[in-house]
Amino acid sequence: MQLLDGKKMASEMKTEIASEVIQFKASGGKTPHLATILVGHDGASETYVSGKVKACHEVGFKSTLVRFEVDIPENELLAKIVELNMDDDIDGLIVQLPLPPHISERNVIEAIDYRKDVDGFHPVNLGRMVIGMPSYISATPAGILEMIKRYNIPTEGKSCVVVGRSNIVGKPVSILLSRKGYPGDATVTLCHSKTLNLKEIVSQADILIAALGQAEFIKADMVKEGAVVIDVGITRIKSSVTKSGWKLIGDVKFDEVAPKCSYITPVPGGVGLLTVIALLKNTMLSAKRTIYP
Amino acid sequence: MQLLDGKKMASEMKTEIASEVIQFKASGGKTPHLATILVGHDGASETYVSGKVKACHEVGFKSTLVRFEVDIPENELLAKIVELNMDDDIDGLIVQLPLPPHISERNVIEAIDYRKDVDGFHPVNLGRMVIGMPSYISATPAGILEMIKRYNIPTEGKSCVVVGRSNIVGKPVSILLSRKGYPGDATVTLCHSKTLNLKEIVSQADILIAALGQAEFIKADMVKEGAVVIDVGITRIKSSVTKSGWKLIGDVKFDEVAPKCSYITPVPGGVGLLTVIALLKNTMLSAKRTIYP
Repeated sequence: MQLLDGKKMASEMKTEIASEVIQFKASGGKTPHLATILVGHDGASETYVSGKVKACHEVGFKSTLVRFEVDIPENELLAKIVELNMDDDIDGLIVQLPLPPHISERNVIEAIDYRKDVDGFHPVNLGRMVIGMPSYISATPAGILEMIKRYNIPTEGKSCVVVGRSNIVGKPVSILLSRKGYPGDATVTLCHSKTLNLKEIVSQADILIAALGQAEFIKADMVKEGAVVIDVGITRIKSSVTKSGWKLIGDVKFDEVAPKCSYITPVPGGVGLLTVIALLKNTMLSAKRTIYP
Repeated sequence: MQLLDGKKMASEMKTEIASEVIQFKASGGKTPHLATILVGHDGASETYVSGKVKACHEVGFKSTLVRFEVDIPENELLAKIVELNMDDDIDGLIVQLPLPPHISERNVIEAIDYRKDVDGFHPVNLGRMVIGMPSYISATPAGILEMIKRYNIPTEGKSCVVVGRSNIVGKPVSILLSRKGYPGDATVTLCHSKTLNLKEIVSQADILIAALGQAEFIKADMVKEGAVVIDVGITRIKSSVTKSGWKLIGDVKFDEVAPKCSYITPVPGGVGLLTVIALLKNTMLSAKRTIYP
């Protein structure tokens, strides 16, 4: 069993992006610039956003954080998005989710210029992904693909089971892994809350992607000997052992599943750490006008 | 075994759309208007296009056919698309595929205003489909869903196997059948040319959608007793029996598979006949500004 080490990968990729920035600027390019809008003061959102800002600085990006109080009217938020869309210095524009209930997430996502949609949530980027055109791939699916690539995990003809059909993980990763080429060409089954005989289906997977958001749902008797297991779940539970009083656990019961696997991601230290990196990569692509010239 | 009768459905749906047009116009609505661009003189394309024009007239739509010779430069074609995009009387705009090799199909599809993209090929419509937003669904997947609905075929929790991952059939129908709600909530496996143990996977399907384009590929020993089989394939082969000298056969070996099925589509007379109807429905939706206000 080999660990898919998200921490090591994230660190390597940050170094790569940092040198890419230096090269790009040396050849006359601009400083990549990510703008983030944060509405309200949700604790988890604050943590995620500060992680993104910090990562930008680490690789030499410019970062702008625009904050609004939780009661901002939707039209004011949309007006700000339009303003940032038109700002030529900004390469990537993201709005931290979730938003307060009076604001439509769909309206916000569709208001972002798809050429700056480095979160990959805009319909244009999703649609281009479906048909295999270049597009911004959203952070978690992009992190999963990158992990598969860096560890040279074969995917062609493999039976891949994705558990969970969220718009930001399960659906896109199932589409990506069934596309032509590497990392793709897998035979993908997408399972969800309505799936019957889930255990039987999951236990046939060569590659299992657990993205259902139920702590330790995947047990050893559901996993095939030698499977590759990628755990996207993150649930925070109380712990008397850690300093913080909390610990993070995944959708996979790691201790009992790991010995059966050829590869497995730990939680924490797995895919979660790659999501910020995927965002940086997309912002770099935007600064270079790679996807949309 | 019950036949899924595309011919009967197409006829019923045309009648429904025709009365919808009458009602819409009686309440002050406009005549729905489909514009079709045809480049060159390919025989199959001529047949498809004249079928579309005829169907428009049958239901009371206005139809415009714009023809270009096969050597039209891409920029002239794109300019015409822009002109038709801006024409307020035109509700739906399609360009018959395939196009000659010097013209980029992707450029053409992306040039069409997504609000008039009644073929459902534009990335915006595909992307909205992925996340369950209203969008124009392309003709064949829309026809398959409509067939499932009209025959009240249960899909929730069913094992659905789609064979073939084309952008216009396999991929979208696999996404649609795994979405929440009816007709969806199926557990979908998407198979393709790189799939190993195809026979084993296909033979577990409650609902089998054959869209690989290989005549009579699906044999009786690949189909589960009681399965629903939807055959999207159309291959034209020589025949000494028919008047025309040709006959159409599907991806399913109908005679031996049909006795095992609960439902099966014939070829011809199945899904193929519904594609033009789906186009009419999308054009009606556009005239009513249902998807994009």
